[in-house]
Amino acid sequence: MNIVEWSALDATARAAMLERAPEAQSVELRDGVARLIAQVRADGDSTLRALTRRYDGCELGALAVSAGEFDAADALVAPELKRAIGEARERIERFHRATAPADVALDTAPGVRCERVLRPLRRVGLYVPSGSAPLPSTVLMLAVPAAIAGCHDVVMCTPANAQGDCDPLVLHAARACGVKRVFKLGGAQAIAAMAYGTESVPRCDKLFGPGNAWVTEAKRQVALDPQGAAIDLPAGPSEVLVIADASADPGFVAADLLSQAEHGPDSQAILLSPSSALIMAVEAAIEAQLADLPRADLARRALAHSRLIHVPDLATAVRVSNDYAPEHLILNVENARSWLAQVDNAGSIFLGPWSPEAVGDYCSGTNHVLPTYGHARAWSGVSVASFVKLVTVQELSADGLRAIGPCAATLARAEGLDAHERAVTRRLRRLAENAV
Amino acid sequence: MNIVEWSALDATARAAMLERAPEAQSVELRDGVARLIAQVRADGDSTLRALTRRYDGCELGALAVSAGEFDAADALVAPELKRAIGEARERIERFHRATAPADVALDTAPGVRCERVLRPLRRVGLYVPSGSAPLPSTVLMLAVPAAIAGCHDVVMCTPANAQGDCDPLVLHAARACGVKRVFKLGGAQAIAAMAYGTESVPRCDKLFGPGNAWVTEAKRQVALDPQGAAIDLPAGPSEVLVIADASADPGFVAADLLSQAEHGPDSQAILLSPSSALIMAVEAAIEAQLADLPRADLARRALAHSRLIHVPDLATAVRVSNDYAPEHLILNVENARSWLAQVDNAGSIFLGPWSPEAVGDYCSGTNHVLPTYGHARAWSGVSVASFVKLVTVQELSADGLRAIGPCAATLARAEGLDAHERAVTRRLRRLAENAV
Ligand SMILES: [Zn+2]
Ligand SMILES: [Zn+2]
Repeated sequence: MNIVEWSALDATARAAMLERAPEAQSVELRDGVARLIAQVRADGDSTLRALTRRYDGCELGALAVSAGEFDAADALVAPELKRAIGEARERIERFHRATAPADVALDTAPGVRCERVLRPLRRVGLYVPSGSAPLPSTVLMLAVPAAIAGCHDVVMCTPANAQGDCDPLVLHAARACGVKRVFKLGGAQAIAAMAYGTESVPRCDKLFGPGNAWVTEAKRQVALDPQGAAIDLPAGPSEVLVIADASADPGFVAADLLSQAEHGPDSQAILLSPSSALIMAVEAAIEAQLADLPRADLARRALAHSRLIHVPDLATAVRVSNDYAPEHLILNVENARSWLAQVDNAGSIFLGPWSPEAVGDYCSGTNHVLPTYGHARAWSGVSVASFVKLVTVQELSADGLRAIGPCAATLARAEGLDAHERAVTRRLRRLAENAV
Repeated sequence: MNIVEWSALDATARAAMLERAPEAQSVELRDGVARLIAQVRADGDSTLRALTRRYDGCELGALAVSAGEFDAADALVAPELKRAIGEARERIERFHRATAPADVALDTAPGVRCERVLRPLRRVGLYVPSGSAPLPSTVLMLAVPAAIAGCHDVVMCTPANAQGDCDPLVLHAARACGVKRVFKLGGAQAIAAMAYGTESVPRCDKLFGPGNAWVTEAKRQVALDPQGAAIDLPAGPSEVLVIADASADPGFVAADLLSQAEHGPDSQAILLSPSSALIMAVEAAIEAQLADLPRADLARRALAHSRLIHVPDLATAVRVSNDYAPEHLILNVENARSWLAQVDNAGSIFLGPWSPEAVGDYCSGTNHVLPTYGHARAWSGVSVASFVKLVTVQELSADGLRAIGPCAATLARAEGLDAHERAVTRRLRRLAENAV
């Protein structure tokens, strides 16, 4: 671990300290993904089968998971896990319902009815990677807000193993959230299939979910194509920034940093503290906790580019955090809530000693799909709003047009848009004639 | 104008009928913009001055508009126009305030406080093109929601003329909306300056506003760069889809189609009607109205690729419109409101005979920065939500962690994330010890 004295750094060194690792974005990756997308668009299902054979080592029959397979998966999931998934789903539902946008209607002038109405996206595509372990929590974080938004057509892709089976826990979570169409597809080909459609996979309006470099690059490419699909968020490695003072338990802080580090070698964990004693104790606790951590190797690689930073005071820590704009911010300090108003850039915030980041990943109720890589400067995490369009409506009565038409005509004329002006004045003339 | 019989078309022909013109995205444009962005990043203000000299024919002194220039501009604006801008601003404020998101707080379990708090973007950059005519309405549509969101740092770029003066009406509107920092910059260089910052122009977190092909390409490029800036919407030419029945006044419908067509040669205007008589009358009315329209040439070029489509009934018209996903949808039919529930893809909707699209452009209260080019399938127009981040917060008491910690630990274990599990169980153990 690198221990750094913030006040000893000049501006350049400070900026370097907060820099993320550069994106792994090679020409090979870009061209490879572009080729693969073109193949899927040209040959549909047969390309999907060929690619699944090559990359997942699996000969697919039907691409979609059958009802029988859902049943079989359900039977394999331990009751304790089913209960945990049900419990998490309920809290996620409660939070997402409470934070969902709603219809609004008002008269902005007499006879000028204006509205903002919600429309669920017609068809959304959820991507759930597999890998070293299943990710049922990702299913919950995407499928629950989609259901609350009222998306009737929810499609999910998740890779199958060599035997052609998807993870039972992922399938159980999907069914628990009302997702009925799951395709045994992974990687960039799954993204291409959902963005453009194939014989089996329907074309989706927006794609959600995490993935490896290929998935990320495929999402970026389909989002750039107006014929493609929108996406949830720009991608980047996961990260946490912990602000802790002398009151914090070093073992808790170390555990929080390690739970970020275990996400992968590219994930970033930063500690800011005004207490040198805490920083030393955290460093020691990390070493001690690494000793018997199963993913210690992964975590060590992440920790190699992580930092423990000594700052003069908590106000500085919050300022530095705002500049860094972390995905997760843990405020493990006395009176943590008193600092909340000063935090402006962060994906999700964890206050006090009893709020480990892991509760946000699973079951506090908030969403764990959050802006990374500094995107928290301008982006928000996934919510029900990510699954709806906010459509505006205006309905003018004749009196309404009499009231505001002249204003519109004046501005249209000033902008040199005569046809706009005439679309208004022609109607106003008609009203004047009829009134006579 | 092309009159089309919908029921005579097969699926391919129908799809072709709804196709937008392909994007004008040449390699020259892409490389030219990339070079220009690199220059601005390398040499800042001096590059901005050189480019402004070359493209706007103007030798800039200070890049920023001075207080004296704001005053001089104000003196040039006619009182009638000032009143119109003030009136429009008030209604836009009223609507955007009513539709702004709000903070939410709830307990998702006893001791588990979850919140969604709003944070205004720290610094936003507004781009207001000039060209054949000034666009004060664009200033209103961007600066009003920025102010309601609480963005303290609002930067605007708008090109100056050869004498180094910005449009007085644009400056008046900016000041009326509380925008104090306006830079005399246009084109891709303005976008680059706001995305990366120069000596004079501060770096912004998100960029808003329309522009020509260079501006659009620059926005796309800075949005792809994590070091760059987020942007409001993917761009595309403006468009309207009108659904009208036999009850509609053909002169109104023609005026609405023409007011779309005059936006530019690439803008698209589509009429869907179950009444052949109306379609013929609209065609005649368009010709008649074109006769003395100042922008008739522009409009004719747009109309060349516009379409009048005869559909079997209104239900078909709404279905076709949903597939097309228009930026503006005018429902000029009897009982227009009764169709609203069936519309799902549209940027903004205009109901009935007295709601010309022009009122949405200027002063009904809704925003005129809307998703074009089919993006209304997944995107919404600009609103206060575009200027804030929705940050989630969780604060657990010891009891809260006792309540939901076991659920988180169970799911973390299932996902193979031991450090996550331990960040929870270490705390639960501590609570158990202390309780003893
Ligand atoms: Zn995590
Ligand atoms: Zn218009």
